Amino acid sequence: MYSIGELQNLISAEIEKEIEILKSKSPNNLYDPIAYTLSMGGKRIRPLMVLLSYQLFNADVKNALPAAMAIEVFHNFTLLHDDIMDKAEMRRSSLSVHKKYNENTAILSGDAMSILAYNYLLRFDNVDLKKILFTFSETALQVCEGQQYDMDFESRFDVCIPEYIKMITLKTAVLLAASFKIGALAANASLKTSDLLYSFGLNLGIAFQLQDDLLDVFSDETKFGKKIGGDIVANKKTFLLLKALEIANEKQKEAILSLICNNELESDYKINEMTKLYRELNLREITQTNITDYYNKSLAIIEKIEFNQNLKVHLLQLAEMIMNRDH
Amino acid sequence: MYSIGELQNLISAEIEKEIEILKSKSPNNLYDPIAYTLSMGGKRIRPLMVLLSYQLFNADVKNALPAAMAIEVFHNFTLLHDDIMDKAEMRRSSLSVHKKYNENTAILSGDAMSILAYNYLLRFDNVDLKKILFTFSETALQVCEGQQYDMDFESRFDVCIPEYIKMITLKTAVLLAASFKIGALAANASLKTSDLLYSFGLNLGIAFQLQDDLLDVFSDETKFGKKIGGDIVANKKTFLLLKALEIANEKQKEAILSLICNNELESDYKINEMTKLYRELNLREITQTNITDYYNKSLAIIEKIEFNQNLKVHLLQLAEMIMNRDH
Repeated sequence: MYSIGELQNLISAEIEKEIEILKSKSPNNLYDPIAYTLSMGGKRIRPLMVLLSYQLFNADVKNALPAAMAIEVFHNFTLLHDDIMDKAEMRRSSLSVHKKYNENTAILSGDAMSILAYNYLLRFDNVDLKKILFTFSETALQVCEGQQYDMDFESRFDVCIPEYIKMITLKTAVLLAASFKIGALAANASLKTSDLLYSFGLNLGIAFQLQDDLLDVFSDETKFGKKIGGDIVANKKTFLLLKALEIANEKQKEAILSLICNNELESDYKINEMTKLYRELNLREITQTNITDYYNKSLAIIEKIEFNQNLKVHLLQLAEMIMNRDH
Repeated sequence: MYSIGELQNLISAEIEKEIEILKSKSPNNLYDPIAYTLSMGGKRIRPLMVLLSYQLFNADVKNALPAAMAIEVFHNFTLLHDDIMDKAEMRRSSLSVHKKYNENTAILSGDAMSILAYNYLLRFDNVDLKKILFTFSETALQVCEGQQYDMDFESRFDVCIPEYIKMITLKTAVLLAASFKIGALAANASLKTSDLLYSFGLNLGIAFQLQDDLLDVFSDETKFGKKIGGDIVANKKTFLLLKALEIANEKQKEAILSLICNNELESDYKINEMTKLYRELNLREITQTNITDYYNKSLAIIEKIEFNQNLKVHLLQLAEMIMNRDH
C-alpha cells in the first residue's frame, strides 16, 4: 500500500512523463502551452484523491493514473480559461498562459486540454467506462455552470449564502467529489460506495473553498505564498463578504459598501479597513464554524462506507492535510 | 428508409427540441448563448452524414440522433471559439456570440458546448461506446491541431501545398470523416467498413474545403450569401493563394506579394487585382482539377464498401449535394 507521499511521487512522475510527450507533439504552439501549464505544479490534490480512493479497493494503483491525469488536466484547463476571463496575469508565481503566449493560444490550448482529459479516461481498460465518463462529463459541465454563477455574482449585491454555497459546490466541490467517485468506480467499487465517497468529497470540497476564502484574509503572508487580501481588493464575493453584508448593522453595511464602491482607494488601506470590519463582525470565527461543520459532515460520511478500517486512515490523513494547510 | 430531406427534418426537429431544453437550464448566461448558436442554422451537413451513414446499416435512424447532435454541437463550439480568435463579428448573418454577449461568455459557453457534445454521445445504449468516443475524441483534438496550424500559417509565407492539405484535413475533413464513421459504428457496422466510410468522408472533406476556397473567389455573389473575396481581403492562405505563389513567375509573384503586403489598398481593388492574377495563372481550372481528384477518390472508396447497392445512392446524392453547392 502506498503512503500519501508515495502517491504524490507517482503522480509527479506521471505528469513529468506526459509533459515530455506533449513537448514532442505538433503543432508546438498548441502543445507547448499545455506542457507549460502542467509543469507549473500546484498542489495536485485531485489526482491524489483519485489514487487514494482507488487504493481503498484495489492495490494496483498505477492502473488509475489515466483517471488521475484526466482530472488534473481538466482542472488545469479550467484554471487556464479562468485566467483569461479574470485577466489574471500570474498563476502559481509564473506568467499565466495568455500572458506568456497570447489569448488565442490560451483559448485553443485550453480547448485541447479539455479534450485531452477525455482521451486520458479513454485509456482505461476492463472497467465500466461509461459510468466513469458519465460522472466526469456531468461534473465538467457543472464546473462551467459554477464559473458562470461566479461571473454572474460580480455584478450582483444581493447574493445570499445558500446561492454562494451552490456556486462553490459547482465551481470547486463537485470536481473533488468526482475525483473520489471516479477513483472508486475505476476500482470497481459499488455505486453506493462510490456515491458515499462523492458525498465525502463534496462536503470536504465546500470546507476547502470556505477555507480558501478565510485564508485570503486571515493567514500568515510568509506561508500563504501570495499577497493577503487579494479577494478584498478585487471585491470578490466571498463567504466573508456576503456574510458580512448579511449580518452587518446599517452603519457597518454602509462602511463595507463604501469600501467596495470606491475605486480610488489604496489597496493596503482597503484591506486593513475591510479586515477591521470582518473582525468586528466575528467573521473569522463564523467562517471557521462553517468550515468545521462541512468538515465534520464529510468525516461522518466516511464512517458509513464499508471498507477496511485501516485504509480509512489515509482518507482522514488527506482530509486533515487539506484542512490544515496554510495556503 | 428516410430520404435526405426527411433526415434533414429529423435533425432540425431534434435541434429545436434541444434548444428548448437548453433555454430552460440555469445559469441562463451559460445556456442561452448555446441555444443562440444552435438556432443560427447552417447547413447541418455533419449530423446528416451521421444519420445517412447509420441508415446504411440500421433503419432505426432515430437511435443515432444523439451522435448527430454531438457532432453538430461540437462543430458549432469550434465555430464559436474560432470567431473569438478571428475577431469575426458575424456568423451566418447574425452577430457572433462574443459580439452579441461578450468574450468571457463566448469562451465559457464554448467550453460547455464541447463537454455537452460528449454528454450527447454518452446517451447511447447497446453499442460499443468506447470505439465511438475514441473516434470522436481523437478527431476533436485533431480539429484543434488544424486550427492551430491555420493560425500558424497567418505569419508564414512559405506554406507549401502538402502542408496546406494537412491543415484542412485536420481542421475540416476529419470531422466529416468521423461523422460517417461514428454513424456506422453506432449501427454496429464492422471496423473495416466504418474505416472505409471514414476515408470516403476524408477525401470528400478535402474536396469540400478546396471548393470553399474556390467559391470565395469565383462564385455568384447573389447565391454565395456573403461577400466574394473575403479570403483575399484577409490575406487568408487559401489553396489558390498558395498555389499562385508556387507557380507564379517572378513578376507575378511580386504583384501578389505587393497586394498582400499593402495595408492601404481598397478592398474591391485588391479583390479585382488578385482575381486577375488568379485568372492569368489558371487557378480556377487548377483548383477545380484538385477538387475533382479528391471527389473521385471519395467515390472510388464507396465502391469498396460492402452494403446494399441501393443505399449507396444516398451517399452519392449527399456527395453531389455538397459538391454542387454555390455557397
